[in-house]
Amino acid sequence: MRRLTQFLLLLLIVPLSAQTPPKPIVSPEVHPDHRVTFRFRAPSAREVSLEREGAKRLPMLKDDQGVWSVTTDALDPDFYSYSFVADGVSLIDPSNPLITPNILHTQSRLHVPGPASLLWEISDVPHGVIHRHFYKSGIVGDERDFYVYTPPGYDPGGRSEYPVLYLLHGFSDDASAWIAVGRANVILDNLFARGRARPMVVVMPLGYGAPEVLKRVGPRDASLWRTNVERFKEATLQEVLPQVEKAYRVSKDRNQRAIAGLSMGGAEALITGLNSLDRFAWIGAFSSGGVGDDYGSIFPGLDAKADAKLRLLWIACGKEDRLFDGNLKFIGWLKSKGIRCTWVETPGAHNWLLWRRYLSDFVPLLFQ
Amino acid sequence: MRRLTQFLLLLLIVPLSAQTPPKPIVSPEVHPDHRVTFRFRAPSAREVSLEREGAKRLPMLKDDQGVWSVTTDALDPDFYSYSFVADGVSLIDPSNPLITPNILHTQSRLHVPGPASLLWEISDVPHGVIHRHFYKSGIVGDERDFYVYTPPGYDPGGRSEYPVLYLLHGFSDDASAWIAVGRANVILDNLFARGRARPMVVVMPLGYGAPEVLKRVGPRDASLWRTNVERFKEATLQEVLPQVEKAYRVSKDRNQRAIAGLSMGGAEALITGLNSLDRFAWIGAFSSGGVGDDYGSIFPGLDAKADAKLRLLWIACGKEDRLFDGNLKFIGWLKSKGIRCTWVETPGAHNWLLWRRYLSDFVPLLFQ
Repeated sequence: MRRLTQFLLLLLIVPLSAQTPPKPIVSPEVHPDHRVTFRFRAPSAREVSLEREGAKRLPMLKDDQGVWSVTTDALDPDFYSYSFVADGVSLIDPSNPLITPNILHTQSRLHVPGPASLLWEISDVPHGVIHRHFYKSGIVGDERDFYVYTPPGYDPGGRSEYPVLYLLHGFSDDASAWIAVGRANVILDNLFARGRARPMVVVMPLGYGAPEVLKRVGPRDASLWRTNVERFKEATLQEVLPQVEKAYRVSKDRNQRAIAGLSMGGAEALITGLNSLDRFAWIGAFSSGGVGDDYGSIFPGLDAKADAKLRLLWIACGKEDRLFDGNLKFIGWLKSKGIRCTWVETPGAHNWLLWRRYLSDFVPLLFQ
Repeated sequence: MRRLTQFLLLLLIVPLSAQTPPKPIVSPEVHPDHRVTFRFRAPSAREVSLEREGAKRLPMLKDDQGVWSVTTDALDPDFYSYSFVADGVSLIDPSNPLITPNILHTQSRLHVPGPASLLWEISDVPHGVIHRHFYKSGIVGDERDFYVYTPPGYDPGGRSEYPVLYLLHGFSDDASAWIAVGRANVILDNLFARGRARPMVVVMPLGYGAPEVLKRVGPRDASLWRTNVERFKEATLQEVLPQVEKAYRVSKDRNQRAIAGLSMGGAEALITGLNSLDRFAWIGAFSSGGVGDDYGSIFPGLDAKADAKLRLLWIACGKEDRLFDGNLKFIGWLKSKGIRCTWVETPGAHNWLLWRRYLSDFVPLLFQ
């Protein structure tokens, strides 16, 4: 018993080995009416504000215990990334274990729970499996990973071949983003359970053909950014795709292959997909950007023949996204080349609130 | 080109949407001699210190730009979790994307790179695959996950059956900890590539039979903690093990099954393994604690017959660990019951620096 007591004391000491604050901080606190209170102890900070995905920055106020807080209006059930900005420095919420992983900017994550009708809420339905593969890329020259989602009931020893979606993350995400932030596995589990989409395998590669792009961002680096996308395309087609087709029961028929992505990944889906129509018949671009506007040189082969090969070209963007006008311009160019596409404009800006919904709307259209 | 410029500007804006600090902070900075400088901008903080795994807390000093810093002595190549403690609040390093995930206490992570001889350094060797499964636990009553590592060359359609190690995390970890923090996949890849261990499948379940233990820690909760371990045992044997044996080519022979864990997971490995010798012949406990000292009631069936069934009982603890004396006492009790074990005492305290090494030493002993 003395041992146990000592052990339990240790359990107390390890997680709280920082100087224990005077009272425990609860943050974020989701109220029954879906208002949310955020709290952050920073007694000597001069200014603290809340930065939340899809919202304007909110100033926080300090109480006499040195705890800053703010309560939002009622929020729609969803997941929201957020940070506390204390005297100009962006910090995670030390009271919240939920993290939004990101290569440049780790944030905390808020879950405002919603009804089971929301596709990103975990339900008691059969779940797919997530697989993480590691390999050395000869094309990029680094050790890297990619993720594969197999749907419920997938049998590696079975005979049926599944259609496959290549799903690409955005700039500053890592390869886990569509799972960890986008909840792609939960969304697909739920779509399949409702009979709203064909069971498919989803491949999520790392989106950097030139990873140094993460360290050198700016207009001068346009050529580096182009290399980044082009080399991503090569690594995906020459390295990831053959590994996937060897390890999984996926179809090699172009009519059973899709590629889609968000932001930078949307540009990569367009450049990879539209320039490899012998491999992909279904293409999606969510809030995409970065292809420049020299479309003729980026997509040299697009004509009515290409259009006939496309089963779906689905392009979506939020109206408050700075990339909205660029998407409109691109759509116009596609039209001038005789390429049909489904153009979806929605409310919203450049964030995961849209991308979870775009995925939910896009996946049911595939392979039908 | 205007589009591209706008996109690249957006890239700049999104990650740095916090008020941009006057100069970029580099932290942690590993110097060629392996000293490490940590930096944290907190102009109005009164006191900031560095809390690092395996080390005493170090005070940091503020410069005239409001940047606190400290430089350590030369550090052994390894991974170290750390936090900045600012006026009593433990924070991650906002300049460092590397995170140590933990349910109670998210920290930052430092990598001091070392030679390829260190088993946790990624090498250009064949890599295993990590699989993450999700299921609803009837025993615990929640939706939960477990991870499975399959070794390089594992063929789901092949005929050979692999031995299997159940590897358990500690209190406050999640099921990803042995991968994300312990680098178990990297260690095993490297052991296999050197011919130092038999290829095996590794299963990493979630270690909470009563997840509410995470919220109610203290000596009064001894019975809850006991429920936590007992229900973990049931969920592992009745729910995880059958799923693993259905989905993977693993042996069902007790001589091909091992169970090991760290801290709370060490206690779970002992309680699950020693009380299920019909299922496990190899058991490891790393820095374990929390079994109490009423050993007779916790391990009722241990006698010379049990000893004959054990192929390996491997117990290790650091000499500076508060749980060291408890481990010594347990070893003495095992001896009195005629149970042989391998007792390994090492320098060090209660942290991952030891557990990566324990795993590296334990795995080569298995299934030989």
